Amino acid sequence: MRFSPLVDRVAGKGAGAWRIHWEALQRKASGREVILLTVGDPDQPPPAVLIDATVESLRRGRTGYSPIIGYPEVRAAVAARHAARTGQPCSADNVVVVPGAQAGLYCALQCLAGAGDEVVVPEPMYATYEAVVRATGANLVNVPLQADRGFHLDLDTLAAAITPRTRVLWINTPHNPTGAVMTRGEVEAVAELARRHDLWVLSDEVYADLAFDGGHTSPWALPGMAERTVVVSSLSKSHAAPGLRFGWLVGPPELSGHMYNLLLCMLYGGPPFIQDGALAALQADPPEVAAMRADYRRRAALLSGILGDAQHCRTAMPEGGMFVLLDVRATGLTSTAFAERLLEAEDVAVLPADGFGPSATGHLRISLTAPDAVLEEAGRRIVRFAGGLAG
Amino acid sequence: MRFSPLVDRVAGKGAGAWRIHWEALQRKASGREVILLTVGDPDQPPPAVLIDATVESLRRGRTGYSPIIGYPEVRAAVAARHAARTGQPCSADNVVVVPGAQAGLYCALQCLAGAGDEVVVPEPMYATYEAVVRATGANLVNVPLQADRGFHLDLDTLAAAITPRTRVLWINTPHNPTGAVMTRGEVEAVAELARRHDLWVLSDEVYADLAFDGGHTSPWALPGMAERTVVVSSLSKSHAAPGLRFGWLVGPPELSGHMYNLLLCMLYGGPPFIQDGALAALQADPPEVAAMRADYRRRAALLSGILGDAQHCRTAMPEGGMFVLLDVRATGLTSTAFAERLLEAEDVAVLPADGFGPSATGHLRISLTAPDAVLEEAGRRIVRFAGGLAG
Repeated sequence: MRFSPLVDRVAGKGAGAWRIHWEALQRKASGREVILLTVGDPDQPPPAVLIDATVESLRRGRTGYSPIIGYPEVRAAVAARHAARTGQPCSADNVVVVPGAQAGLYCALQCLAGAGDEVVVPEPMYATYEAVVRATGANLVNVPLQADRGFHLDLDTLAAAITPRTRVLWINTPHNPTGAVMTRGEVEAVAELARRHDLWVLSDEVYADLAFDGGHTSPWALPGMAERTVVVSSLSKSHAAPGLRFGWLVGPPELSGHMYNLLLCMLYGGPPFIQDGALAALQADPPEVAAMRADYRRRAALLSGILGDAQHCRTAMPEGGMFVLLDVRATGLTSTAFAERLLEAEDVAVLPADGFGPSATGHLRISLTAPDAVLEEAGRRIVRFAGGLAG
Repeated sequence: MRFSPLVDRVAGKGAGAWRIHWEALQRKASGREVILLTVGDPDQPPPAVLIDATVESLRRGRTGYSPIIGYPEVRAAVAARHAARTGQPCSADNVVVVPGAQAGLYCALQCLAGAGDEVVVPEPMYATYEAVVRATGANLVNVPLQADRGFHLDLDTLAAAITPRTRVLWINTPHNPTGAVMTRGEVEAVAELARRHDLWVLSDEVYADLAFDGGHTSPWALPGMAERTVVVSSLSKSHAAPGLRFGWLVGPPELSGHMYNLLLCMLYGGPPFIQDGALAALQADPPEVAAMRADYRRRAALLSGILGDAQHCRTAMPEGGMFVLLDVRATGLTSTAFAERLLEAEDVAVLPADGFGPSATGHLRISLTAPDAVLEEAGRRIVRFAGGLAG
């Protein structure tokens, strides 16, 4: 049977990026003591208020249909949080509730770009981005983030990538997989390019609460940018609750109207009880969120410190997020070979970052989603493994 | 700012079909005792096992990421149910878990049809279908379901609509909004056309448990159809739990592979606790499901009986589903005028069925999602209102 052309467009390399993760899961299921540092699935429990309110809502029978783009009070709570963080106005009309940031990125780009358009994205980039762009029919235009700049964006390179077909500049800060956090000046420069060329800025801010020095800047915070900025975020990382699939878009009210039409035919609303839980968590602003940032900062320092002893490897303290990158180029192994042999020899699973883009070739992405003692053990095993390599 | 062409494609009339529903909700919020028979949101509580297992899973901390197309054991449970009902083989490889039937229809058609293709759908049809088709870039080709045939499909008309560009025949049985249930012979004729012209059959079976005489036939049940049939269903209607957004696709294994790629970039998996709840409900096969069918059959007979006395109006006992259609053409009012004046005069909210397609012009869709006493009262008010019309 013949399928639509879309099936080829979404079948990018991205889907293969997690292969070693599935291998590690099988190895673990077969009884090995595998330390799994492949995915960004927080090991902390979600704040109790989030789960309690979700359960209470289920028990109250909140299992009917819900408004297509979210309850007005939930959208208002997200808006209030966003306004407080950015210092710019934001109301419920700007907010659309979606089942996770991935859905937010997919839905947003469906409304912003189409066949023949170009979407500019720095790489390495999160492994699903390519398929999100190609699902719209638009072309993905990558600009490299260079390891020797700490994976910070070179703005001349970005400017040079813009053509008359460009519709969207897509940024992600704090950045997955590199841990780079864009400075205010860098975000301002991107905003200036967007204004000059009349472009959208799509801003993936799912790690905003995990900027270690509190220095997260959203393009929404900059003057004149609310009309052309779409922010996507969720509670997945900040509240250690990816399984709740509670995310949102913040954008111009006109986008919310288009999102209503798209979500009507695509999802027809989400679970009311999840929105009730999320609303309680947003209103309570539980201390676990700040504790999470402290956790990841401490873990990042701990692991990158230990990995400083790994022969032929280089690493640096990330500026945010929940990953440490390890540069293994000087070992003579590809990152995939390194990861596979590390899993085989030491039962530590990490992700080759090559799947996130060519500029991450030779790097491993190591997730910090494990307690300190586990990360220390993983770090020691990686150091031992690297020490046994010829280099 | 400029949006993508998609925003126009999904902005169909369908989005306007619920306007009177929102008006009625506002009227209710302002303190009026409105009887709301606009949407198919079951009034019964979901089976206890479904909610209990969902809560228990949340309490167990099942709030991390889940497999992109669903847990293998959940997919296997859906497959076993589908195999038992159709008498044809079905395994986990055939099944993809999606957040509700709406998502299933959207995702399926994204993989089956694209720009330049034609998707043939009998009308009236559920109000989101047009946008689902147009979101893919394909063209919607409607064939009329005629009121004087009890809205059963005329197969010659269907055959005449097929062109070399046709890729998909999309059926829905039991049918929303008309309540028609396709006979086995009718489904066989559709299957024969699909085989002859090498087409997909997309089968929306969300009301399958509400075929009043138990006569639901899935195209999957017919010889040689598994390779070209995609069945979409959910627990929303059968288990009175639309807010759980638990739905599924059943199709060829190759489709499941494409769905993995699409859902990876579109949703990145669903809430684990909802799948745990659904699995418990699928395994327990609670008596509430059969009771639900009895409820809707009894309610349909009750309301259509009362409405038999409505002057200038015609109705018939539906064959399945949760709606009664009322033909108000002889009143001299449009269905929208009838619905608006009925809401104003009698505080009963029903949906003009015109939004579901031109062949439903002059009909109202009345939801059976209320207890008998409420339906009796609504029926009496409609009879009273119709009696006051000139005709």
